[in-house]
Amino acid sequence: MRLALIGYGHVGRAFARLLENKHAAYPFRIVGIRTGRHGSAHSERGLPLEPEFGPSEATVEEFLDRSRAEVVFEITPLEPASGEPAIAHIRAAFARGMHVVTANKGPIAHAYAALRDEARNAGVLFRFESTCMDGAPVFNLVRDNLPGVEILGFTGVLNSTSKIVVEALRQGRGMEEGIEEARRMGIAEADASYDIDGWDSAAKTAALANVLMDARVTPMDVERRGIGRLTPERVAELAATRKTVCLVSRARRTASGIKLRVRAEVLEETDILAAVRGTSNLLLFHTDLMGTLGTVSLSPTVGQTAYGLFSDLVDIARAL
Amino acid sequence: MRLALIGYGHVGRAFARLLENKHAAYPFRIVGIRTGRHGSAHSERGLPLEPEFGPSEATVEEFLDRSRAEVVFEITPLEPASGEPAIAHIRAAFARGMHVVTANKGPIAHAYAALRDEARNAGVLFRFESTCMDGAPVFNLVRDNLPGVEILGFTGVLNSTSKIVVEALRQGRGMEEGIEEARRMGIAEADASYDIDGWDSAAKTAALANVLMDARVTPMDVERRGIGRLTPERVAELAATRKTVCLVSRARRTASGIKLRVRAEVLEETDILAAVRGTSNLLLFHTDLMGTLGTVSLSPTVGQTAYGLFSDLVDIARAL
Repeated sequence: MRLALIGYGHVGRAFARLLENKHAAYPFRIVGIRTGRHGSAHSERGLPLEPEFGPSEATVEEFLDRSRAEVVFEITPLEPASGEPAIAHIRAAFARGMHVVTANKGPIAHAYAALRDEARNAGVLFRFESTCMDGAPVFNLVRDNLPGVEILGFTGVLNSTSKIVVEALRQGRGMEEGIEEARRMGIAEADASYDIDGWDSAAKTAALANVLMDARVTPMDVERRGIGRLTPERVAELAATRKTVCLVSRARRTASGIKLRVRAEVLEETDILAAVRGTSNLLLFHTDLMGTLGTVSLSPTVGQTAYGLFSDLVDIARAL
Repeated sequence: MRLALIGYGHVGRAFARLLENKHAAYPFRIVGIRTGRHGSAHSERGLPLEPEFGPSEATVEEFLDRSRAEVVFEITPLEPASGEPAIAHIRAAFARGMHVVTANKGPIAHAYAALRDEARNAGVLFRFESTCMDGAPVFNLVRDNLPGVEILGFTGVLNSTSKIVVEALRQGRGMEEGIEEARRMGIAEADASYDIDGWDSAAKTAALANVLMDARVTPMDVERRGIGRLTPERVAELAATRKTVCLVSRARRTASGIKLRVRAEVLEETDILAAVRGTSNLLLFHTDLMGTLGTVSLSPTVGQTAYGLFSDLVDIARAL
């Protein structure tokens, strides 16, 4: 199967390594890579991990045409406010009859319903397991393993940087030190306020609600209150009564529509939401037939995000 | 699709109710039910929730022949020491070219590898999602959503009665009172020592290891140390240092084979394993490509176990 990658950062390279390791059992081939800074590379026989890049085609459309890929991977950096240009990249692939896998939450948070319908009309598949929980089964789990179940809402702890920062505050350090630590771990967004103010969680919340509850919202529709005003003193005060603070995403279906919020919540230290520390994350689904159940992922790295792309690819290959 | 049920207790009735509610979208029909005490019932048009039972056929084989079912549900009570007669029931179905779904962990804990091969040779499907975690996605999750992943081990909190008992001890009550409470909740096994001594957890551990790690073990192969000698004093002592006790199942692949154990472990109260209280359960998979990830189910009831049977049935219907 012929693959093309739009974007080739940490996730793209980890994905290429994974494909190389699994080549005997899963003979996929990366025939084209387009990057923002290094240009493009093409090879009919499959590209090496560190290909020689030449000048980029003038447009993504030209790149896709030249690649003649069957599956396109949209893994450019997130542009949180609009989800572009990733949305345009995905549409260009659909228009060429190419299946799409993305790890970019922007398109799912901003334009999922339209993209889902466009994929259907084009007769192609669209997968995005790595967008909200670093590759742990979420969307594929609900689709494959919960037939006939309605998702009534969800509760998630989905942002790592905020947890690192709260832990730093708990140790009496300042918010800036916590952000610096998250940067050293490679998990903070370039603009850390995106994590601290809850925008990252809001984008994930919107994406989850769009896919699992057909919410048709954007991150702007998520009520949002971040951890920006939290102080070491307040965290110490809470710790004295065995409580902590956690940035929690919540969705629920109500009579007046779907309510979405991201809020710094005070939790008992023994709460399962508080037990998810560091880069770990947890997503609980509230359902009609299966009560509350969920997925937990402990200390995921970029390798898991890359695996999420791989599991989407295998899912597409199986469906064809 | 024609279904036959062997066993018709709480789980069977909850399953029949679920089928009735979902009949418009999923037109399955229960054409035969065989019980241990009330006899058998048959109907070509589908049996009502409380059918009139007549005398049982002399053997399960005769019952199955008469039912001409396509999918057989083995949901008789667990016989922990051998897994029989459920194993014989399953084999009788396979011999007739019938697919099998079971919520009975005995056959999976005692004879999984043989049953898997026999199903394959008979050209039928064999599903058992409800055996270890009350219907939450475990086996179907690994099979469908983790392609190419090797399970290196797992850690689980899978027994409810022991958690109710530890909570009773923490409140200064005795072990017998805790067991009584679990009985009132309908979750303790008839012989509570089966829960307290870790046999229930050992059976689940063996079943999980047999399916996910091809371990070919029985519950006897699981090193086992229950909570039988725990006292209110010891639990209070631990609580003073923010610790608790939890019956934890662990499996890991080592150079000398697969090590399995069930043990009352001392945990920090903030440990994610300790955060799973009451009838909730958690199973973490340790993998090569996806790090540690898992499934959590909060306060499941018999409805979830019934849903697990339903999800297995839909999985079989999709595969045909």
